[in-house]
Amino acid sequence: MAVGDDSLPTLRAVPGVRLGTVAAGIKKPGRQDLVLIELSPGTHCAAVFTRNAFCAAPVTVAREHLRTSAYQPRYLLVNTGNANAGTGDPGIGDARACATAVAELTGTASHEVLPFSTGVIGEPLPVDTISRAIPQAYAALASDGWADAASGILTTDTRPKGLSVGFSVDGANYVVTGIAKGAGMVRPNMATMLAYLATDAAVEQALLQQMLLALVETSFNRVTVDGDTSTNDACVLLATGAAGNAPVTEKDSPLYRALYEAVEQVCVTLAQALVRDGEGATKFVTVQVNGGRNEQECLDVAFTIAHSPLVKTALFASDPNWGRLLAAIGRAGLDDLDVAKIGVYLNEVLIAQNGCRAPGYTEDQGVAAMAPEEIVIRIELQRGSADATVWTSDFSYDYVRINAEYRT
Amino acid sequence: MAVGDDSLPTLRAVPGVRLGTVAAGIKKPGRQDLVLIELSPGTHCAAVFTRNAFCAAPVTVAREHLRTSAYQPRYLLVNTGNANAGTGDPGIGDARACATAVAELTGTASHEVLPFSTGVIGEPLPVDTISRAIPQAYAALASDGWADAASGILTTDTRPKGLSVGFSVDGANYVVTGIAKGAGMVRPNMATMLAYLATDAAVEQALLQQMLLALVETSFNRVTVDGDTSTNDACVLLATGAAGNAPVTEKDSPLYRALYEAVEQVCVTLAQALVRDGEGATKFVTVQVNGGRNEQECLDVAFTIAHSPLVKTALFASDPNWGRLLAAIGRAGLDDLDVAKIGVYLNEVLIAQNGCRAPGYTEDQGVAAMAPEEIVIRIELQRGSADATVWTSDFSYDYVRINAEYRT
Repeated sequence: MAVGDDSLPTLRAVPGVRLGTVAAGIKKPGRQDLVLIELSPGTHCAAVFTRNAFCAAPVTVAREHLRTSAYQPRYLLVNTGNANAGTGDPGIGDARACATAVAELTGTASHEVLPFSTGVIGEPLPVDTISRAIPQAYAALASDGWADAASGILTTDTRPKGLSVGFSVDGANYVVTGIAKGAGMVRPNMATMLAYLATDAAVEQALLQQMLLALVETSFNRVTVDGDTSTNDACVLLATGAAGNAPVTEKDSPLYRALYEAVEQVCVTLAQALVRDGEGATKFVTVQVNGGRNEQECLDVAFTIAHSPLVKTALFASDPNWGRLLAAIGRAGLDDLDVAKIGVYLNEVLIAQNGCRAPGYTEDQGVAAMAPEEIVIRIELQRGSADATVWTSDFSYDYVRINAEYRT
Repeated sequence: MAVGDDSLPTLRAVPGVRLGTVAAGIKKPGRQDLVLIELSPGTHCAAVFTRNAFCAAPVTVAREHLRTSAYQPRYLLVNTGNANAGTGDPGIGDARACATAVAELTGTASHEVLPFSTGVIGEPLPVDTISRAIPQAYAALASDGWADAASGILTTDTRPKGLSVGFSVDGANYVVTGIAKGAGMVRPNMATMLAYLATDAAVEQALLQQMLLALVETSFNRVTVDGDTSTNDACVLLATGAAGNAPVTEKDSPLYRALYEAVEQVCVTLAQALVRDGEGATKFVTVQVNGGRNEQECLDVAFTIAHSPLVKTALFASDPNWGRLLAAIGRAGLDDLDVAKIGVYLNEVLIAQNGCRAPGYTEDQGVAAMAPEEIVIRIELQRGSADATVWTSDFSYDYVRINAEYRT
């Protein structure tokens, strides 16, 4: 199950980027499971990786190669079906071997290849299977390969996720295209997700990294499906410079600001797409917390609601069980919380205030508010001017089924 | 569903305590839903309440009455079917009205009656229905009423929970009897639980409160079903003094130590019983974390594992998915965690070490280890001498069903 429109929008080519996707047979025969991404020389790469202490071997190797290549890799290799996580030192060797296979074929250095893996944890990576398929992926490289790549990186996802945004500055046209995968084990820092975004604008690497860090914070770090953090998360932003502009070096330049907005639109859309395709999701839920003393306490309340199994099962049942919302707010750990001030809204219907059901609120109103696939839970704390928004999904029978059966 | 033996052991009377249980018709006709507990004059009462900022009206009133009565209440009134939570100021009035009804009938002061409620949040308490049934509950008071009371306080529980422990000091015999309810919305500080323990030993009130605080910390605060904290939790320890001993005033007295051990046995047994009867539970899981630098980091690892929906669905599937265990350990937030040192055991089978599958471990061993209803997950951090244990259950279809349908 998944929420909302499942069609993939048209993904525009980004000059300087070519992608090749093939069925290597890593886990299931015939499944598109290996993606090679080629970057033109001089492409700058920014990246954010999982903070899980048990990070996967490819994360370790990709981090290292990124530094060694002065943040200018030439190839990204992404496999699905096997996470190469919980594989110890042999896993590190396997990740390096895949990078070397690409390097030898393409005449680049191993450290110019970044490996990424997603799939089952704890199984040895089938290096031979992957190596055999790399020449086919290389042969398949094409600038219009984004849609195939969007499918080729999926695991339990039910649909590919991507977006392109074009913009113009001073008469010159630019594009940002991004793809992402992730459906379960999704939460901040980071989701079990891989995301690849590219633009043809030229941007200084340090600035590109700052942009990515800021935008991950307000997009991918604001979604949660089940509160679990993966071992393999990565989000990559590439700037090929193929548009020919003078590299952006200042945050207050018009091109930086326009690019920031375009990348933000792609990041937020992809982050929300992860939740819409959350494992077993039947609802897409926006949790908006206003009137906090600071952003952190707004996030504490929002994530306590978004992670509560009792709230999530009530959402699945379309049950306007505002008592569970009050209970979640009450245990979010806010100092001297005045519960009498708090207002709770479901799709703009005021359901609770003064610590109890709102006067005039009827169960029929609540049922009507819970009926749509897309629901906004708005909490008004009335103790400050900060706010925060997170996105989440509900907890269904299918969530249990998918995760109980995942390895079988 | 529930795990293990479902028979209630024989609950022994505690001199100084009488209990009466009746069907008041609060939510369902014919269901035993109202319990009155009478305490002999001079009984000392210790209590721990929920830390949820949205605490229920009876919690506010019980706290207040406890202080006003100098911690010597004469009656406890417990209703199920309605939590009187999220009911604002009218709810406070309703809780007081119930206490007053008991007081008027029994010739005591209102502040000598402590009200407790559990059940649906957000509905007005049916004060008239409860008041009409109080005389019947009073007429039913009996010293052997513990088993009926154990049933009369239940909500989504599938079985009553109780234990009696007898002990002797200096030739005198004493008893501790306790009952508890709780199955969902269970986590530390505190579970959605009510627990009532009583002893006939005489103990100074301050010492009794210290004992209860210490023992709640290592029993009820070490269990989790779904990570949600309730609005109504309370744990009460009563010392009637009917045994006639000189009141215990020192922690190092033999009677204090013997009583401590007996109360501990009752608390831990009841806490584990909550998990065994966890909503939809098919497994009883002990998570034991050894070799931490301090107890808190052991608890952080243990609760991260115990709260992880991915671990819990794998437990439901009897799937030895150690990758999800590693991922949970890795995101528990421990500083400079050396993942290569960590050992992971399932029912004494070493399944992972050095950040990957243990040499010699086979999937068959893992499947065999996961087959029993009772499972021990043991994590050896090897970075210190602290340890901690928590108890939890799995995440099943029935958990979703129970919580999606609870209000219908």
